[in-house]
Amino acid sequence: MNMKDDPQLRRDPVTGRWVLIAPQRAQRPINLPGHAPTHRTNGERHPCPFCPGQEADTPNEVYAVRDTGTAPDGPGWHLRIVPNMYPAVRPDVDAPAPATADLFVTAPAFGTAEVLIDCAQHYDDPTQLSDKQFADVFRAYRARMTALAADPRLAHVSVFKNVGAEAGASLGHLHSQMIATPVVPELLRTELSCAAEHFGRTGRCVFCALVRDELADGARVVARSERFVIVTAFAPRFAYEMWLLPVAHEPRYEALTDYGADELAALLKRVLVALDRVQNAPAYNWFLHTSPLRTGELPHYHWHLEVLPRTARPAGLEWGFGCHITTVAPEQAAAELRDALPKS
Amino acid sequence: MNMKDDPQLRRDPVTGRWVLIAPQRAQRPINLPGHAPTHRTNGERHPCPFCPGQEADTPNEVYAVRDTGTAPDGPGWHLRIVPNMYPAVRPDVDAPAPATADLFVTAPAFGTAEVLIDCAQHYDDPTQLSDKQFADVFRAYRARMTALAADPRLAHVSVFKNVGAEAGASLGHLHSQMIATPVVPELLRTELSCAAEHFGRTGRCVFCALVRDELADGARVVARSERFVIVTAFAPRFAYEMWLLPVAHEPRYEALTDYGADELAALLKRVLVALDRVQNAPAYNWFLHTSPLRTGELPHYHWHLEVLPRTARPAGLEWGFGCHITTVAPEQAAAELRDALPKS
Repeated sequence: MNMKDDPQLRRDPVTGRWVLIAPQRAQRPINLPGHAPTHRTNGERHPCPFCPGQEADTPNEVYAVRDTGTAPDGPGWHLRIVPNMYPAVRPDVDAPAPATADLFVTAPAFGTAEVLIDCAQHYDDPTQLSDKQFADVFRAYRARMTALAADPRLAHVSVFKNVGAEAGASLGHLHSQMIATPVVPELLRTELSCAAEHFGRTGRCVFCALVRDELADGARVVARSERFVIVTAFAPRFAYEMWLLPVAHEPRYEALTDYGADELAALLKRVLVALDRVQNAPAYNWFLHTSPLRTGELPHYHWHLEVLPRTARPAGLEWGFGCHITTVAPEQAAAELRDALPKS
Repeated sequence: MNMKDDPQLRRDPVTGRWVLIAPQRAQRPINLPGHAPTHRTNGERHPCPFCPGQEADTPNEVYAVRDTGTAPDGPGWHLRIVPNMYPAVRPDVDAPAPATADLFVTAPAFGTAEVLIDCAQHYDDPTQLSDKQFADVFRAYRARMTALAADPRLAHVSVFKNVGAEAGASLGHLHSQMIATPVVPELLRTELSCAAEHFGRTGRCVFCALVRDELADGARVVARSERFVIVTAFAPRFAYEMWLLPVAHEPRYEALTDYGADELAALLKRVLVALDRVQNAPAYNWFLHTSPLRTGELPHYHWHLEVLPRTARPAGLEWGFGCHITTVAPEQAAAELRDALPKS
């Protein structure tokens, strides 16, 4: 018996979520066509509502990186943020009343839903962006979150990117989404309360402890720069799941400097090139976990970006019971990713 | 503005999970090929380790429905349960020690993983099963859970079925999985504690309250029989998500009678035919939520079966923040399903 391949239970250090890592299951027979998640494909170029010249297909921009002297909603832009034409939440309804004790509670979906179009080119792969373009995306997240914080009705902005149809993208042209809501969403509330519990028990930020231990051990470190480290998740939901964290204690993403955005972009882009090499361009999401809007500098919370590649299709144990099974140990995944990094 | 199509926030009556229902998003442009989840396809027939004659490809059976006088692990069976050849948990390792305060906790994955092969025919669609075969599956769940309860190291059995590659099935030949573990998995713990909280506050089982209100209202009722009702979930994770519940208070699935199994099977099969008609044979999971092993008759918990069709691909808001968006209101889904029911 190869002990290394015996299935393991692992507990996520932040949320306490248990997962199973079972490398032997990679050997199981498969006879159902379409079992593997689909890799990324290119979107059709026409019609693309996010391409230059199609500005009339989107609502008026609320933020843009533009050539000097060009007018809003016309040509000359390099990055645009526009309200989502097909929003899941709307600013023109009442903010929900507090939850009641009723069994069936429905509320108008108040909030703002915006689309960040990463670039004027019809790119569908983040690694096609120049370092400057990549950094502009992270600066735009910061700018828009700071602006949305001025509305006291909004408590949180969910910032995420879907890359590839398997990861839920419906348009190929690179874009992110920013959904601001009056409530802090469930997974972030869980993280915040678990981190507060850890702080109360140990006097330390759990993410600071994680970064310290990961850097000391090294087995799950994929890449690091001066300010940031990218590790494979200790208890992943999907194989090759990665977390990017500031090395120092940084509770609020909005405090990211321009130097920090440049550094983050360069580091993440290299790691995404490695992910594409190792897993043949998988679909993925990335999403930003940071303190709710207008909170001060929390001692127990530390912003980070999670990258979740679609390396398997969750099934009954995942959806029905909340327990994820993966077949590649995170230490193995990190070693493969390090070997595939482009020269910096 | 059509108010009916305005996005809504809804709160799950049991767990408190918030979801968004946004029918207008069904109109959004899509230019990325492969955006829609794949519908069910047939598995390749050869080689199939679950077909008769291939018994040597699976470990020895632990339960079977067989013709009288036939020997284990040979021909003559109609349903078999065998240990999983590629288990995510194993019975021959130590049960995990209690969780420690360490950041990175790993434990041997103790437990049993079994596969229930539904039928001797190479069927890949549950509605191909005869009513007797369908009922035998639900009787076998009961028998095996009762047998596994004799091992005091095991606390819970996760019973689920994956139908279709998009829902995580790797083999087409119809089968269920039963994974017994020393811990109660996360989503069931959440349900149990939310149900206990509701009971403490109201003196009622939340599922009994739900069944009463759903039957009184009728808008989400898909079908009912004497003992059971199937409703569309009030706050679904996927459009057309359905819950099958006993109408009376039944905490433990193991107490299901043979009459109950027959009735459940007939009801569920009719509804799955309707689901296939309405959504063109989507992939789905079903999973059983019931009291942990060896618990008595809890006043606050009520077993039920959830059916989760893959009608969309979860993206960044779902995976990153725990908030599901669907585009079909459950009342609309229930009306479509009722219209598509076969005559009983």
